[in-house]
Amino acid sequence: MEREIIDIAKRIFKFEEEDAGFFKFGDAYIVIANDMLSRSFDFPSKLLPKQIGWKAVTASVSDLAAMGAKPIYFSYSLGLSREEISFVEDLMKGIREALDFYGMKFLSGDTNESTELVLDSVAVGIARNLLLRSNAKVGDAVCVTGDLGRAYCSLLYLLEKVEEIEEKILEKFLKPVARVDEGLKLANIANSAIDVSDGLSKELNLLANSSGVMIKVFEDRIPIREEVLEFCTSNNLNPIEVALNSGEEYELLFTVSKDKLEDLDFEFSIIGEVSKGEGVFLVGKEKKPLLPAGWEHFSSK
Amino acid sequence: MEREIIDIAKRIFKFEEEDAGFFKFGDAYIVIANDMLSRSFDFPSKLLPKQIGWKAVTASVSDLAAMGAKPIYFSYSLGLSREEISFVEDLMKGIREALDFYGMKFLSGDTNESTELVLDSVAVGIARNLLLRSNAKVGDAVCVTGDLGRAYCSLLYLLEKVEEIEEKILEKFLKPVARVDEGLKLANIANSAIDVSDGLSKELNLLANSSGVMIKVFEDRIPIREEVLEFCTSNNLNPIEVALNSGEEYELLFTVSKDKLEDLDFEFSIIGEVSKGEGVFLVGKEKKPLLPAGWEHFSSK
Repeated sequence: MEREIIDIAKRIFKFEEEDAGFFKFGDAYIVIANDMLSRSFDFPSKLLPKQIGWKAVTASVSDLAAMGAKPIYFSYSLGLSREEISFVEDLMKGIREALDFYGMKFLSGDTNESTELVLDSVAVGIARNLLLRSNAKVGDAVCVTGDLGRAYCSLLYLLEKVEEIEEKILEKFLKPVARVDEGLKLANIANSAIDVSDGLSKELNLLANSSGVMIKVFEDRIPIREEVLEFCTSNNLNPIEVALNSGEEYELLFTVSKDKLEDLDFEFSIIGEVSKGEGVFLVGKEKKPLLPAGWEHFSSK
Repeated sequence: MEREIIDIAKRIFKFEEEDAGFFKFGDAYIVIANDMLSRSFDFPSKLLPKQIGWKAVTASVSDLAAMGAKPIYFSYSLGLSREEISFVEDLMKGIREALDFYGMKFLSGDTNESTELVLDSVAVGIARNLLLRSNAKVGDAVCVTGDLGRAYCSLLYLLEKVEEIEEKILEKFLKPVARVDEGLKLANIANSAIDVSDGLSKELNLLANSSGVMIKVFEDRIPIREEVLEFCTSNNLNPIEVALNSGEEYELLFTVSKDKLEDLDFEFSIIGEVSKGEGVFLVGKEKKPLLPAGWEHFSSK
């Protein structure tokens, strides 16, 4: 459904899909990321209002990070039902805590009545060099920061599909951190980037399509933590599937010329390479196409 | 309820309430207005998707106009239920039509699943001089562009509280126009401004409180069109009450030094004056305090 709507929007508004909107002003780019989250569809009921506030800021800041922008200002539009008023104070404290963490200033807030909590975060940043998803070059290494899979496992737990989970897995989902410093460094070094908000398989396809290239990813290079491997074993899940479909990771997927890899002074994994052609391929025992929704959500192997 | 939430937000984020957020960049101000509308609470069911799109853009552009900013860029976040997908194309055409009318460029769109249509409009503008609601001066004339009351009458009709209405009344509600040119002119001349989105009585109180002044408004100076007077007579309504409580008018309420009134080359009405003190008073046969919600919505006299 989302794809269908985006295609209508692209036809009517004629724009390139990026992580955020941007325009040049003087010698810099003003980058504006807006990200809407609604209670029924984005927040497991176990999530506390404070955690919702933090996550909403991180989601929009992560879009700025993927564009190589420094986050500076924040606004929100909030829709709320009368029954949810008790949420507001803690929700705003969560937003406040995140703004302090990212060093952002508050611009303005808009409040409305709606059928259920809907929070649209608007993060504004400034970039000297823009990092686009449409600029991956043939020969680039494909890399990703941090680790993947913890958010997916956490969601299974919070939706009560599994009974137990390690704190170290859950913490990344409850209080995710956008890769702001990495994004700023990548702006001067990498060729392209996108943030992992909807799952690696989907982001890889967006990157390949936008850049008009083929991407090969090696199964055994995907960074998965020991706790996630154990969680998958216990719950009969395929850890590669989990890592590929895990959204809300807020890691940066990026491509960089191989001769510049040594300029990157933060932790990341090289998971694949860019070549001529189109599509995304996953290379394990065999090589197979990796589609945007490669597996059904919440399928077990 | 809204007031309560705004007060929590002001305590946590420590900001001044203005029509939009803004920050200085180089020698200009970047002004960002976000305005969320949800289907159950903001759109009578008779409103067409295209009209919703137009209105959403106008609502955020009107906030820029009230700050003296020129609207330039637009983004949206859209939440939608599966049942509302057929809306999307026309909704976006309405947005597109408004962007063309205001001469704005499209930045980006974010799409989400939600329980019902929620549209957050983000309009970005640039101002050389900022027009604030906190800067009304003692001695200023209090003025308003256009006419008031048509939106309220239209709402009564669209909500099926009355059976008949003249097209000339309805057209302002179905396709409102933000006062962009007036706002740009006022930025160099007026002392303060606010847009009439929630009703004149509420905006007058916001202006007086933000500026720390008293405002007197003369009942017989409030601009009400002949059609509205007739509509009120037919439906046993008090036209002054209607004009004071009519939201979504998108007129500009502003204060200006009396010796600069002749510099204003567009149509407006002088409805009152700013003096020392606090509060808002309505002067008719007698002088009485005008509270933010002076009358119950949809009350008849």
